[in-house]
Amino acid sequence: MANITKKVSWSSRADESGATGERTPLLNGSEQNPHSRQPSEGGSIFQIGRLSTVDLEEEITSDEDSLRGRPKEIPHNEKLLSLKYESLDYDNVENQLFLEEERRMSYMGFRCLEISRWVVCGLIGILTGLIACFIDIAVEQLAGIKYQVVKKNIENFTEAGGLSISLLLWAVLNSAIVMVGAIIVAFFEPIAAGSGIPQIKCYLNGIKIPRVVRLKTLVVKVCGVICSVVGGLAVGKEGPMIHSGAVVAAGVSQGRSTSLKKDFKMFEYFRRDTEKRDFVSAGAAAGVSAAFGAPVGGVLFSLEEGASFWNQMLTWRIFFASMISTFTLNFFLSIYHKKTGDLSSPGLINFGRFQGDSVAYNLYEIPLFIAMGAIGGLLGALFNILNYWLTIFRIRYVHRPCLQVMEAMLVAAVTAAVSFTMIYFSNDCQPLGPEHTDEYPLQLFCADGEYNSMATAFFNTPEKSVRSLFHNQPGSYNPLTLGLFTLTYFFLACWTYGLAVSAGVFIPSLLIGAAWGRLFGILLASIPSKDTIWADPGKYALIGAAAQLGGIVRMTLSLTVIMVEATGNVTYGLPIMLVLMTAKIVGDYFVEGLYDIHIKLQSVPFLHWDAPATSHWLTAREVMSSPVTCLNRIEKVGTIVDTLSNTSTNHNGFPVVVQVSGSDEPAKLCGLILRSQLIVLLKHKVFVELARSRLTHRKLQLKDFRDAYPRFPPIQSIHVSQDERECMMDLTEFMNATPYTVPQETSLPRVFKLFRALGLRHLVVADDENRVVGLVTRKDLARYHLGKHGLEELQLAQT
Amino acid sequence: MANITKKVSWSSRADESGATGERTPLLNGSEQNPHSRQPSEGGSIFQIGRLSTVDLEEEITSDEDSLRGRPKEIPHNEKLLSLKYESLDYDNVENQLFLEEERRMSYMGFRCLEISRWVVCGLIGILTGLIACFIDIAVEQLAGIKYQVVKKNIENFTEAGGLSISLLLWAVLNSAIVMVGAIIVAFFEPIAAGSGIPQIKCYLNGIKIPRVVRLKTLVVKVCGVICSVVGGLAVGKEGPMIHSGAVVAAGVSQGRSTSLKKDFKMFEYFRRDTEKRDFVSAGAAAGVSAAFGAPVGGVLFSLEEGASFWNQMLTWRIFFASMISTFTLNFFLSIYHKKTGDLSSPGLINFGRFQGDSVAYNLYEIPLFIAMGAIGGLLGALFNILNYWLTIFRIRYVHRPCLQVMEAMLVAAVTAAVSFTMIYFSNDCQPLGPEHTDEYPLQLFCADGEYNSMATAFFNTPEKSVRSLFHNQPGSYNPLTLGLFTLTYFFLACWTYGLAVSAGVFIPSLLIGAAWGRLFGILLASIPSKDTIWADPGKYALIGAAAQLGGIVRMTLSLTVIMVEATGNVTYGLPIMLVLMTAKIVGDYFVEGLYDIHIKLQSVPFLHWDAPATSHWLTAREVMSSPVTCLNRIEKVGTIVDTLSNTSTNHNGFPVVVQVSGSDEPAKLCGLILRSQLIVLLKHKVFVELARSRLTHRKLQLKDFRDAYPRFPPIQSIHVSQDERECMMDLTEFMNATPYTVPQETSLPRVFKLFRALGLRHLVVADDENRVVGLVTRKDLARYHLGKHGLEELQLAQT
Repeated sequence: MANITKKVSWSSRADESGATGERTPLLNGSEQNPHSRQPSEGGSIFQIGRLSTVDLEEEITSDEDSLRGRPKEIPHNEKLLSLKYESLDYDNVENQLFLEEERRMSYMGFRCLEISRWVVCGLIGILTGLIACFIDIAVEQLAGIKYQVVKKNIENFTEAGGLSISLLLWAVLNSAIVMVGAIIVAFFEPIAAGSGIPQIKCYLNGIKIPRVVRLKTLVVKVCGVICSVVGGLAVGKEGPMIHSGAVVAAGVSQGRSTSLKKDFKMFEYFRRDTEKRDFVSAGAAAGVSAAFGAPVGGVLFSLEEGASFWNQMLTWRIFFASMISTFTLNFFLSIYHKKTGDLSSPGLINFGRFQGDSVAYNLYEIPLFIAMGAIGGLLGALFNILNYWLTIFRIRYVHRPCLQVMEAMLVAAVTAAVSFTMIYFSNDCQPLGPEHTDEYPLQLFCADGEYNSMATAFFNTPEKSVRSLFHNQPGSYNPLTLGLFTLTYFFLACWTYGLAVSAGVFIPSLLIGAAWGRLFGILLASIPSKDTIWADPGKYALIGAAAQLGGIVRMTLSLTVIMVEATGNVTYGLPIMLVLMTAKIVGDYFVEGLYDIHIKLQSVPFLHWDAPATSHWLTAREVMSSPVTCLNRIEKVGTIVDTLSNTSTNHNGFPVVVQVSGSDEPAKLCGLILRSQLIVLLKHKVFVELARSRLTHRKLQLKDFRDAYPRFPPIQSIHVSQDERECMMDLTEFMNATPYTVPQETSLPRVFKLFRALGLRHLVVADDENRVVGLVTRKDLARYHLGKHGLEELQLAQT
Repeated sequence: MANITKKVSWSSRADESGATGERTPLLNGSEQNPHSRQPSEGGSIFQIGRLSTVDLEEEITSDEDSLRGRPKEIPHNEKLLSLKYESLDYDNVENQLFLEEERRMSYMGFRCLEISRWVVCGLIGILTGLIACFIDIAVEQLAGIKYQVVKKNIENFTEAGGLSISLLLWAVLNSAIVMVGAIIVAFFEPIAAGSGIPQIKCYLNGIKIPRVVRLKTLVVKVCGVICSVVGGLAVGKEGPMIHSGAVVAAGVSQGRSTSLKKDFKMFEYFRRDTEKRDFVSAGAAAGVSAAFGAPVGGVLFSLEEGASFWNQMLTWRIFFASMISTFTLNFFLSIYHKKTGDLSSPGLINFGRFQGDSVAYNLYEIPLFIAMGAIGGLLGALFNILNYWLTIFRIRYVHRPCLQVMEAMLVAAVTAAVSFTMIYFSNDCQPLGPEHTDEYPLQLFCADGEYNSMATAFFNTPEKSVRSLFHNQPGSYNPLTLGLFTLTYFFLACWTYGLAVSAGVFIPSLLIGAAWGRLFGILLASIPSKDTIWADPGKYALIGAAAQLGGIVRMTLSLTVIMVEATGNVTYGLPIMLVLMTAKIVGDYFVEGLYDIHIKLQSVPFLHWDAPATSHWLTAREVMSSPVTCLNRIEKVGTIVDTLSNTSTNHNGFPVVVQVSGSDEPAKLCGLILRSQLIVLLKHKVFVELARSRLTHRKLQLKDFRDAYPRFPPIQSIHVSQDERECMMDLTEFMNATPYTVPQETSLPRVFKLFRALGLRHLVVADDENRVVGLVTRKDLARYHLGKHGLEELQLAQT
């Protein structure tokens, strides 16, 4: 089962030493534990709509005697909630140490902190912009070389009839490049696969995804995305920028790199989840901003996908990071393009500007736009459903790294082959006019001075194909070309998303949409009419692109702004909004958005914005985990070590209780302490006896906790002698003395709101005598979701 | 003192019957009450940075023997916190009735509710758009007539030398129109004065501002703004749209109008503060959207100014309302402009489009933009300081409606006179080219075929002047004209803001900024240089406009988006951001934003985003009000009536406690009940004895509370007989059984965060036995603010 644990996660590798401390090493033991929380029987006591009837245990039992190595097939379904993901602590631990530090700090101290927050955001922006710049230039150069080689080869062989050799060359070249990208991802850092947006979404939601914001992930991601784009896969380089920005933010804000073992002794104040998560929001925004040249869109993306508590100062910092990021990118790209100082060029993606009279639209076009939105929603839903099945298949059968690499190479080869075939059989020849801007026009069997129009769509990086579809003259493409292109690219993109390569889904989606949108426009224009406004198919390509992307990812507000900023024109704001709304409504009727599907398939305890609508039946009493392992305020070291080492509990937070001495009254809640804090205390041997005998050389400071953050050592690595086990530990100074509590009768929506709004990790349920009766954590809330048949409860699984 | 209470409020009128029920009629008694909360001596026990030394009482005492009528001078300062403003309840009252209703509701029921929320938002958008359309057309028509009359008159008299008659005509015309606007505002609905943005900001912050979202306010606001703009004041029609949108939202979402005594029996579910405030956010956004043609800017405005908890579904609804609003406006304006169906025209304001090559900017211009931002910040700070003094003066001396009307008329006359003088003495003649679009060119003493360029700036509605400054050809204005115009308009606008007329400050600010920005651009262009990019002063006019507006109102994110959407060009996004940030940083160094100044001067308990940085010293124990008036779960009617009638308490929420029968243990907290709920219970005589004797015909339902919302009757209007006083009331069903509580040791920032994030109104402070020891309300938190010398505490005042 330990192996299963590994395989269905985003990062299909064994836990590394560092991450295990906080991330419940105890869970690796395969025994199901009946004590740690009320098992599923408990859930069925309360009549919830309809309980999921899938039981993971059965499936696992049948699998138990399979090889201890990698099983051939991994059973998996989406009605599970993994216990292996932990929450971030967005709530500050307000213990005495913290309060003392805050009280010591002067007003100027706080001003300095605020200024250093801005500095960090500036750095995040600059570095993210530089990375985007690097990716852009690398892709352009490498893709240029590749297309030159292939083009020359094709041109040589067009007459000679040896086109199959060209095909072979193209396919092998693509496969080889993709292989490099897939190998580094599959073998070195599996979490770098995909666009990274689902992972960042989870992180911003408050879930600790292991290794997601590490330097190594960033390196693999950047190299991986260059390989996948250059390798000709149906992917974009934009999505991964968001992940890259987040990693940069997590790194810069901590003022050190654990991977490089380098501590700059800066920004130590920011070494906690609260601050780190804020900076990661800024990083994600900076990534979007660099990717699409959309600083406002970036801010909205961060907020729409991540933030729960809107804080004005934070928003401004995020905005600043976004701004700096797009600014840096523009500046360096302007140097690269030899137009130094001209900052008017947008982000990584360049849709070209929609300007002049062609941008007008009329009232009677609104229904057409809405219809296109609906088509986008339908196609998006189809895409998502196909990708869902594919992902299930991949989780079950394609989980070995070598298989993953082979699949990626296969997709690369097939993409090349399909493109080649399409170009080969297409006879859509267009004149090579003077205003033609295509970099690699393929003549093939066309007459001299003409080029193959199918090739503009296939034989190009996807960004450039999108731009051609938006801006090329009416008549540049014939409908058949566009139809065939849409069809093939749709399936290729669907197959590609989820491969073990770093790649985004934004650009392929836009490309599919732009293709059918342009087709739509051409068909409209063929309807006899006096009006000339329909003459511009580029407009419909834009709307189609928005519809398709909206249908797949289901973002509305941020996507509208991103599209507006990327096209440099606000006139289309209104139609784009309408289209995105329609696409979302239509798509949601069938299936969730692509990112949500992938989050669900990873069984991540993702908290949505609100509790399920019909969950007022449930109260804290029913959702909480109980009984809770409590610690005394002055506790024996042995007890603490045993509690932490006990593989049958998986709690990371322990309510601290106090027994009034001499009385037999029940113990009352007086605080909450985290596993990570206890680990640090044990490591520094902060025992009462030692303090009395003055053996401790100094008082433990907040700095000690910050130094250990975020990779706290596991309990197993801490040696506690038999004598020390008999010592006592005084938790008073270190525990959070004022944890949030709720009474047992609190309804689930109310608990949910408190938990979500404040980004809590542990919420203590107390009775009216202030005794601890339970503990609500993320998984207790994420368990309930609204299915097709009312409220459903997900099964908790150790996977 | 009761009169003083009235005068320093935004709505300088005696409380009306309706508002008083919830809004503590008890406060009208002029006795200072030592019991209701710890008085200021209590505050000084705890060492807070430096306490404000101003004592309201002294000043009032000296004033006590003044006339009982309207005192001539009202003492006032900004270091006060009024006790007369109440919080909204953004936290749902989860009592048994509510939970039962929620539990009865099926999943389909929730879907229907969600759909009706969207319908309401659609209606809000449509109505707001229509109102904007009405204002726009009315202003255009009326101003057209006025300018025609004056122009004809001036032209007639230019040669004849009777220009003083023209001046008189212009001044009298303006004064007369402004008089109408001032009279309806000053005498009928004082809350409709100004832009309404500070009031809406407070409402969204969670403060109940009396009469701010009433139908009458809307009518007065709309008529008032038309009069002020047509009357030629230095005002805009955009700011008031935000208020109008908010009123529309509050009205539509309740499905009834209390003023019109019409109940449509619709949307009854939305009759509570939580839902209403959400809709008001949408209304404010729709208002911005209609005013500036900026739907995304509207959403961001609502969020930046108001929301604390970002909810995705809510954001989308707000977005929808914004979208519909701008759509409606565009559609009807397109009919009005006889281009039916062309939706490409933007909102109320029309800055014209910046297009083509003139929009480019270069790296070396960035420092210039930043410098302009700094100038904007300085000028903005100056504007705010002047207006602050003026407002203090107005509060003290100009508080009678007739004085207010006279001041408004005076300003109108002076504005006309100054404009006339400026035009008269200006000799900036420009040729009347074919591309000239000015509607009312004044020839005056210019040669034939020329027009007076000063007149384009003054003799026009401010929106059109802004557009001219942005887009007129280089050379249309000479530097002296612009300099003089900036100077005069600056002081006129500063004098105008705060008059008893409905008017916005956006457009005048933009106009001032555009004028000096253009001047800046002209001066730059006069520097010898080979580069042609500086040739366009329109670009600098735009940047200057942004800088000036940013320096005055200090918004950044939303204002950037509004400017981008209003100009229809995203290229300037980055410079505008930089400029707004700079303006904010520079301006904040001197003084707060204009809206914040006005909010502070009204002593509103406004909660900022975070607790003051250095407030970790304070704990709940120190900030809470105590002792708290508690009620028993089963309480004698007489006690309740006495508690509610007691003029020495001002609480609106009462913790409910339960005494374990027979034991002498202290009473434990078991719930929280609101004054408004008790009033409804008393009104329906929900007494235990009646229930037993089956005299109550039906069980009290949630509907009864909703029907009474939001104008709960005052306790005085409820008759309770002596017999009834002996009855008992069972509060179990009606109280919120799970109020949020915090321990006494909780630090202020932690209390603040909980309070702010969840939008609470009452937060119970309990000890570790779960006994009530205090109650934290909005004013307990709003009292602390960061002054120049560290943490300061505001004085609570009955004003």
